[in-house]
Amino acid sequence: MTKIDSLDTSILKLLQENGKRSYTEMAKMLEVSEGTIRTRVNRMLNDKIFEFIIHMDPNKIGLQVQAIIGIATKLGYQEQVANRLNQCKEVRFVGVFSGRHDLILQAYFKNNEALVDFVNEELAQLEGIDTVDVSIELKQYKDSFSYIANGEEHHEYVEENS
Amino acid sequence: MTKIDSLDTSILKLLQENGKRSYTEMAKMLEVSEGTIRTRVNRMLNDKIFEFIIHMDPNKIGLQVQAIIGIATKLGYQEQVANRLNQCKEVRFVGVFSGRHDLILQAYFKNNEALVDFVNEELAQLEGIDTVDVSIELKQYKDSFSYIANGEEHHEYVEENS
Amino acid sequence: MTKIDSLDTSILKLLQENGKRSYTEMAKMLEVSEGTIRTRVNRMLNDKIFEFIIHMDPNKIGLQVQAIIGIATKLGYQEQVANRLNQCKEVRFVGVFSGRHDLILQAYFKNNEALVDFVNEELAQLEGIDTVDVSIELKQYKDSFSYIANGEEHHEYVEENS
Amino acid sequence: MTKIDSLDTSILKLLQENGKRSYTEMAKMLEVSEGTIRTRVNRMLNDKIFEFIIHMDPNKIGLQVQAIIGIATKLGYQEQVANRLNQCKEVRFVGVFSGRHDLILQAYFKNNEALVDFVNEELAQLEGIDTVDVSIELKQYKDSFSYIANGEEHHEYVEENS
Amino acid sequence: MTKIDSLDTSILKLLQENGKRSYTEMAKMLEVSEGTIRTRVNRMLNDKIFEFIIHMDPNKIGLQVQAIIGIATKLGYQEQVANRLNQCKEVRFVGVFSGRHDLILQAYFKNNEALVDFVNEELAQLEGIDTVDVSIELKQYKDSFSYIANGEEHHEYVEENS
Amino acid sequence: MTKIDSLDTSILKLLQENGKRSYTEMAKMLEVSEGTIRTRVNRMLNDKIFEFIIHMDPNKIGLQVQAIIGIATKLGYQEQVANRLNQCKEVRFVGVFSGRHDLILQAYFKNNEALVDFVNEELAQLEGIDTVDVSIELKQYKDSFSYIANGEEHHEYVEENS
Amino acid sequence: MTKIDSLDTSILKLLQENGKRSYTEMAKMLEVSEGTIRTRVNRMLNDKIFEFIIHMDPNKIGLQVQAIIGIATKLGYQEQVANRLNQCKEVRFVGVFSGRHDLILQAYFKNNEALVDFVNEELAQLEGIDTVDVSIELKQYKDSFSYIANGEEHHEYVEENS
Amino acid sequence: MTKIDSLDTSILKLLQENGKRSYTEMAKMLEVSEGTIRTRVNRMLNDKIFEFIIHMDPNKIGLQVQAIIGIATKLGYQEQVANRLNQCKEVRFVGVFSGRHDLILQAYFKNNEALVDFVNEELAQLEGIDTVDVSIELKQYKDSFSYIANGEEHHEYVEENS
Repeated sequence: MTKIDSLDTSILKLLQENGKRSYTEMAKMLEVSEGTIRTRVNRMLNDKIFEFIIHMDPNKIGLQVQAIIGIATKLGYQEQVANRLNQCKEVRFVGVFSGRHDLILQAYFKNNEALVDFVNEELAQLEGIDTVDVSIELKQYKDSFSYIANGEEHHEYVEENS
Repeated sequence: MTKIDSLDTSILKLLQENGKRSYTEMAKMLEVSEGTIRTRVNRMLNDKIFEFIIHMDPNKIGLQVQAIIGIATKLGYQEQVANRLNQCKEVRFVGVFSGRHDLILQAYFKNNEALVDFVNEELAQLEGIDTVDVSIELKQYKDSFSYIANGEEHHEYVEENS
Repeated sequence: MTKIDSLDTSILKLLQENGKRSYTEMAKMLEVSEGTIRTRVNRMLNDKIFEFIIHMDPNKIGLQVQAIIGIATKLGYQEQVANRLNQCKEVRFVGVFSGRHDLILQAYFKNNEALVDFVNEELAQLEGIDTVDVSIELKQYKDSFSYIANGEEHHEYVEENS
Repeated sequence: MTKIDSLDTSILKLLQENGKRSYTEMAKMLEVSEGTIRTRVNRMLNDKIFEFIIHMDPNKIGLQVQAIIGIATKLGYQEQVANRLNQCKEVRFVGVFSGRHDLILQAYFKNNEALVDFVNEELAQLEGIDTVDVSIELKQYKDSFSYIANGEEHHEYVEENS
Repeated sequence: MTKIDSLDTSILKLLQENGKRSYTEMAKMLEVSEGTIRTRVNRMLNDKIFEFIIHMDPNKIGLQVQAIIGIATKLGYQEQVANRLNQCKEVRFVGVFSGRHDLILQAYFKNNEALVDFVNEELAQLEGIDTVDVSIELKQYKDSFSYIANGEEHHEYVEENS
Repeated sequence: MTKIDSLDTSILKLLQENGKRSYTEMAKMLEVSEGTIRTRVNRMLNDKIFEFIIHMDPNKIGLQVQAIIGIATKLGYQEQVANRLNQCKEVRFVGVFSGRHDLILQAYFKNNEALVDFVNEELAQLEGIDTVDVSIELKQYKDSFSYIANGEEHHEYVEENS
Repeated sequence: MTKIDSLDTSILKLLQENGKRSYTEMAKMLEVSEGTIRTRVNRMLNDKIFEFIIHMDPNKIGLQVQAIIGIATKLGYQEQVANRLNQCKEVRFVGVFSGRHDLILQAYFKNNEALVDFVNEELAQLEGIDTVDVSIELKQYKDSFSYIANGEEHHEYVEENS
Repeated sequence: MTKIDSLDTSILKLLQENGKRSYTEMAKMLEVSEGTIRTRVNRMLNDKIFEFIIHMDPNKIGLQVQAIIGIATKLGYQEQVANRLNQCKEVRFVGVFSGRHDLILQAYFKNNEALVDFVNEELAQLEGIDTVDVSIELKQYKDSFSYIANGEEHHEYVEENS
């Protein structure tokens, strides 16, 4: 497995605070050269340790209804169903989980009608689904992508490429 | 509510394909001036329609265990519990939902032990939790942030600032 | 128990088709005197067999969210909780039922936020509630008050007051 | 969407107290002309904001057993099943809901036998039902149609047509 | 419906204490003639208000395992399944019930193996069973047939045939 | 443990067909002396292998509502709760069972109101009950006490007292 | 049934403390001859009262994921499914149980992927499985094979073969 | 982590077939010296990769009832409850699991009464248990400790100490 060291971690931490931070600023903050930052960032991008994305507010682009949907598939259909769900634009997340529902998804819809249509039309076309259990989001408290906590990185390290 | 028009939608769609796309490139692709792109992006950032973030692969930064946790709070404690969960670094997402579990969270952990500690130590300190039901992710199929489907934007529009 | 005969049933059937039907019209349709209709209607109103009400469309008066809420009360608190729910304006219906949730209610809310507030503030103030399970209406198919089917009434009867 | 103003709300509130209130009485109470009341009522009836109905006491017309029935339909059959249930005279209410049972109905029956027949004969003829879960009402606390609370309307307004 | 009066009730109460009580003894205790007792008992037997039976202790005749079994039938098969269960010697009781399991049975078996065979062989031959949920009795506290409580009968009555 | 032989079994079988069968009749049918029948019956009564009881039809003595009630007791209260339930006249049967509800009871009530009162008043006074789940009987198919099947007894035996 | 006496019990107790204990050591500890120990051990092995096995630590031989899996089989397929599961190397334990899942298994896997493959490939090939519910072990507290508690054996006995 | 090579695996495989196999026999079968076998076995015992134990048949030593018990602990009590269960002689296995029951145990009892006592006395003394769900084993199909499948080991290797 690709290892990340404490400099990598420090860079990730600065970028999770602000995805637009410049190499120059990070170099100054971490007291390394801008080239080092660039090398590290490029290596981590190559290793798919992170990617630069935009995170839209679903409500503000007209997606008013968020649901978490538990699906129990018929034995032998899990992979096929998951792959098809993967291609549905409404679906943000699909995973296989322990418990009664072997697939759990998060999905966004314009309104309740679009959700009902998704279940009755899109899901109904997928062979291999046994039961569907829809939970509607009533209020959101957190939707963050900052996985690295304060104090987890270590600032003492030697500049590598010097 | 802030409205987004078809140019906004086109810009978002290009950025969700590639969060690092330059204004120049987008201006060329959408046949508008770079200034227009800049104006639109800045307005959408101000309106918190989207933000630039980095999305890390949890496994590659050492978070091997992902869980979806359903929590039933005691009546009257939901907001307080949600606010405290909001501050836990392990928690990526918290929402109030319909159904048996009024709070559902997604969280990432280094390993099973860290998950068990989270439940027994962090959750146990929060007053007002009745039951906790942990589902472990066994395999991930999709974790995308592309909410805008092909064909949803309209390319015919008039350049605004011209 | 108050008995209703076939003339009563015929009158109820005409009124359930149209709550504004005049005594004159019903008298003609049922071939009895207007006085008979008036006597029967008044007796049935006195016996609380029916009442004249207005039925509003919740969506059109700004109540966008309908929920069916199952509540399990602590033993001994059922009556007290039901009586308090009875007084909540959001609650249209409360009954004691068989099964896991001893109380089931139907309630209408302006939006999800009002529903969340109802649970966290109004319900939280009622002593004696163990668990709350909220189901959100996604689409409505029928909300009718016509309990008498075609063919259930019998038209052969003798005018009483003649 | 049709908007209702505070005079509409005041009229609805008076009618929900008493569905037989005369225009004259309401005009006096709200200090507007009878013509204004009539215009408003007719507009609201046209806009299907409310209707005049009779509400029968199910027990008093011989319907002794009330049930709330949760139905899980097979994927793709929800609409068809809901439409058929819509036509059953025993069914007062049908809606699509979040949770384990995608359809929830309220229905009234003469006795337990009629309920058992409804499940075994009427429901059994509908293709596409997976599971049926019957809850029997043991005691009723509230069955109201007054959705507008005291203090929600505002009495200060200008007569429109004057 | 057949009515039972307070003398009937008193006789039932004496018989539920001791199913072998003689008419002579009951006549003396209730201060009526032996003929009256005989007449009443015969009428109640004819009306199937009660019957004389023997109640065996299942353990003592070699039935070591008692189970309560919840069965969910496929829609339309309930009656047929119930009638077939009716004929199984292991089954003491079958009824249609509200809730997730539309049929509930009580049954006695020689041992766990006989119970497993009952499920896998006898139940498996009945078309129309969806799910089976077996609960095993671990300890019995009460198995009584005395439905009439002390103080429920009234001793003041007039001898009928006198 | 008391053993029963094939003659005992034959006697029990005749009595379960008809609890009023005379010793003379049974002696003739089984080709043994009446004294042998009497001895066997008395020994079985002494050993509490069976008892003579009357079995009343609950509906015909005015008990219209039958319920199976699952109760989950708080740890340590099971025995105490079961003993108290044992003394409730409404309760026909109480046992400790495997599964989610550690106690299951069968009980009979005059009507739904009496059932609701039983739960809210009698059960509410018993310390140590966590949850109560009521299932209402909608239709009864079998309530038999014949545990011995045809062909289970063996007719070849030697008269003991000869 | 084979009976074990207190000397057998004492021997089993010494062996459950240490499966490699020599006959000489046990003979000294229990104050009987080594031949007696040998005779007893051999008889118990013949009677399959115990066997000498090795117990591997699953984690240390590369089996990182332990699951308890509840399976509901279709009626009539239980035995066949259980026999097939019996032959799966991943499965350590299979039994028929009371409750919603008629089969419960314990199984060990290299990693989550192997568990997902087991469900989707091995289980999917077994005809007759309705639902599968996987619980993942997060932490182990006890996995012992010492069934005989201190104080259960009695040391006073007479040497048998002397 | 301690690594085991293919010779270790081969030795474990021979011992899981027969826990009493001699070093001489294994040496011959694997074509290595007896000293090599001894060294390997001792290292694996030191590393706690396996241990020699006896596996008793619970039924044959008088433990007639096996149960799998799901326990939901109150938040913060899981570790304490698990540690106490660890010390109960009836408990063979305890683990923390995903799902509704955070602790799952396997336990053996003399009879149903001992199981009921375990729940009502031993478990009732442990502070911090919310709910207990007992599943009774009705039939056992597999209880094996052979984790290494045929074909997993590799026989080509070089003797290490030569």
